[in-house]
Amino acid sequence: MAQEKKLVEAITSMEEDFAQWYTDVVKKAELIDYSSIRGCMILRPNGYAIWENIQKQMDARFKETGVENVYMPMFIPESLLQKEKDHVEGFAPEVAWVTHGGGQQLQERLCVRPTSETLFCDLYANIVHSYRDLPKLYNQWCSVVRWEKTTRPFLRSMEFLWQEGHTAHATAEEAEERTKQMLNVYADFCEEVLAIPMIKGRKTDKEKFAGAEATYTIEAMMHDGKALQSGTSHNFGDGFAKAFGIQYTDKDNQLKYVHQTSWGMSTRIIGAIIMVHGDNSGLVLPPKIAPTQVMVIPIAQHKEGVLEKAYQLRDRLAAGYRVKVDDTDKSPGWKFSEQEMRGIPLRIEIGPKDIEANQAVAVRRDTREKIVVSLEELEGKVGEILETMQAEMLERARAHRDAHTTTAKTYEEFQDAIANKPGFVKAMWCGDESCENKIKEDTTATSRCMPFEQERIAETCVCCGKPAKVMVYWGKAY
Amino acid sequence: MAQEKKLVEAITSMEEDFAQWYTDVVKKAELIDYSSIRGCMILRPNGYAIWENIQKQMDARFKETGVENVYMPMFIPESLLQKEKDHVEGFAPEVAWVTHGGGQQLQERLCVRPTSETLFCDLYANIVHSYRDLPKLYNQWCSVVRWEKTTRPFLRSMEFLWQEGHTAHATAEEAEERTKQMLNVYADFCEEVLAIPMIKGRKTDKEKFAGAEATYTIEAMMHDGKALQSGTSHNFGDGFAKAFGIQYTDKDNQLKYVHQTSWGMSTRIIGAIIMVHGDNSGLVLPPKIAPTQVMVIPIAQHKEGVLEKAYQLRDRLAAGYRVKVDDTDKSPGWKFSEQEMRGIPLRIEIGPKDIEANQAVAVRRDTREKIVVSLEELEGKVGEILETMQAEMLERARAHRDAHTTTAKTYEEFQDAIANKPGFVKAMWCGDESCENKIKEDTTATSRCMPFEQERIAETCVCCGKPAKVMVYWGKAY
Repeated sequence: MAQEKKLVEAITSMEEDFAQWYTDVVKKAELIDYSSIRGCMILRPNGYAIWENIQKQMDARFKETGVENVYMPMFIPESLLQKEKDHVEGFAPEVAWVTHGGGQQLQERLCVRPTSETLFCDLYANIVHSYRDLPKLYNQWCSVVRWEKTTRPFLRSMEFLWQEGHTAHATAEEAEERTKQMLNVYADFCEEVLAIPMIKGRKTDKEKFAGAEATYTIEAMMHDGKALQSGTSHNFGDGFAKAFGIQYTDKDNQLKYVHQTSWGMSTRIIGAIIMVHGDNSGLVLPPKIAPTQVMVIPIAQHKEGVLEKAYQLRDRLAAGYRVKVDDTDKSPGWKFSEQEMRGIPLRIEIGPKDIEANQAVAVRRDTREKIVVSLEELEGKVGEILETMQAEMLERARAHRDAHTTTAKTYEEFQDAIANKPGFVKAMWCGDESCENKIKEDTTATSRCMPFEQERIAETCVCCGKPAKVMVYWGKAY
Repeated sequence: MAQEKKLVEAITSMEEDFAQWYTDVVKKAELIDYSSIRGCMILRPNGYAIWENIQKQMDARFKETGVENVYMPMFIPESLLQKEKDHVEGFAPEVAWVTHGGGQQLQERLCVRPTSETLFCDLYANIVHSYRDLPKLYNQWCSVVRWEKTTRPFLRSMEFLWQEGHTAHATAEEAEERTKQMLNVYADFCEEVLAIPMIKGRKTDKEKFAGAEATYTIEAMMHDGKALQSGTSHNFGDGFAKAFGIQYTDKDNQLKYVHQTSWGMSTRIIGAIIMVHGDNSGLVLPPKIAPTQVMVIPIAQHKEGVLEKAYQLRDRLAAGYRVKVDDTDKSPGWKFSEQEMRGIPLRIEIGPKDIEANQAVAVRRDTREKIVVSLEELEGKVGEILETMQAEMLERARAHRDAHTTTAKTYEEFQDAIANKPGFVKAMWCGDESCENKIKEDTTATSRCMPFEQERIAETCVCCGKPAKVMVYWGKAY
């Protein structure tokens, strides 16, 4: 028991200190390690395997919509970065500059990509000539660098992994359609695979991407009530096309500018998985994304036939699930703690008594419910349990979010809600950036998005009292 | 016909100018595009899809041997790079330096990783404590940067994609075993999947990796007789462990240094695929690696039922193969040229007469053999043809290599062979670097490797006449 205690005691409870709980979980579940470079994290096998699963499943969804993968250089010449004015203003302050290479000072500095709009524009200017060349639906999986002052594992790091899609279209309508289509791909993936419900909406001008006409976002609520922007999709209109000269000859023989989009999701989403589903025993992974879905743990494994039976169950389950046996020489209790810390959705306990009764004990990671399963029905039951767990995790996350979403008609109500009720506040807004600024100053909350699903909560802006234009989700955010 | 001509005329024949043929193929098959950054290439969808397939299949082979994937930072602080003397001497001259970030000059320069031994050592020093923590079998898929003076697509570029495996072991024997095991994984993959036969052997000290005790290599022969180093596996002994202080407590309670290996294969191998299998109509991809294995091309597609039939064939084949229909409004001849340029292994022609006869015409990309296939037997026949093609491509490559490998007993024979018979020369060597240097100066040939399969060609060194120690493969190389 001493061992078990040690592992669980090692993490702070989330009620005591949510930030510390988070840091403890990422370390103890061995998702990341810190590196010698300030703000850069090492993704260890447990962490990277989650990203690999996200990548595999998202990539398949992208390809279903016609997207093709490419790889662009990691360096952007300074002159190229400067071609679109808003974009360079947004990113120049936070880039890393390569000034020397091959023992010599470079004639022109290269920045390490913080995002690759400029490179894709440069490519499209070269390869798009006719309407027949459109649309271009390219995506890349890579890492990007942004020189952040304060960093936190997954949520904000100097270098992070992501995918960035960049498309070029013949018409504004097509670009707008693609922008929303990809936002839906993200939202559906998060709900169906990660069991995280999303608020879909549009960012205010203050919060939109540098150089975009419109930025759409999916926003999730963490266990502590804070928001996490989880994926964004941008419509650039023809702004970049004009800056980079991306023109095509249309069917009517006219030279026209393309319309572009970009959209990205990063390892940040792993932070959301942790903070939406985790508990005081560690990580809880939704079955569909868990690198290991089932851990078979033999009880009294030194007894004859126990290990053999454990391997047998693994081999049977391996046909349909990602399954392992923990056959190390640790105690069963220690193995339980490890499996729980790592968030493995289901554990199957099998000991001499179980073998005698031709059964095993399945324990759900999320509810800790113990289910005695007849070995005849093993595969089917495991499938049922994992499906139920996946569905219930989403429902719990949705219920938590809804229970932590309030509405405010007056500024008093609004301030009270932000101060005392962790979560989202729905309130009306006049559309002026000055109100967003005041709210941020007074409460530290920001506008998360103008949701697609609007409600008419009041007729006046919650901040200034002028006529309201739109309902906004407000909240403190990571 | 004008169209067809244009596409084929666009590439130089390999007999006329092999280097230009190569450049033409990578461009016309749309594998890469040049970027605004000197020496950095853009991997376009046709090129990146080949890398994705390599990655998927190699990754599965790695994992079968117990390897786990991780992701390390792309930056290495200067002080960390300098910890191992030979290593820094080898790489410092060709790195890119980040000197500014977030608007400020950095206190310590960061280099963009040219390879990540130092980062993995830093991690292992932190996480390896006991014999229970060993072995560590980590790998990462990433890009690295080396400031090359002259660059060529795939073969040598400033930034390239690769995988780098880094392992730590309790004993020297285990490390040596892993070094060879991974070399075999590479060689088997290249033969079985890429249809490229490999010479396996050890690099001479002159040619080994900076910081390694031993470097093993696989060497392939290109169509022009030149060698391409296609993958390497290094045994570091405990050299890095001592420089970085990576120690563990063994079962006997003694503090010991770990023994390490690293091994890598890069997008360079795509250059090998092109130069081993390509012909004057473009790329020829081995079926197992081809992103599209079968292209169905309708003949007279405006006629009733033709397109429908083409889609039907595609849908039938899609269950077992990567298949597409070219239903664009181009002429069949143009489509053939495109399919050939892109190296798609098999084309299925289907027109009104074929439909009437309940057949299709299958055309192999490599031999251009036309095979009339009854539609009843379509799936089985396509499978057979692709298998035969895969096997014959390997056999042809092997025959070409063997026909272009000579032996030399005297220096005259050696010089004649290098000058007049493009290919490998097998010759004995005394083991002195001075002979390697003289040979390089006289002939531009380098020692490719000391093959595991040795022959006793002569008793004396082909260069200096002193007693011979070992047979070496020599050749001009990319």
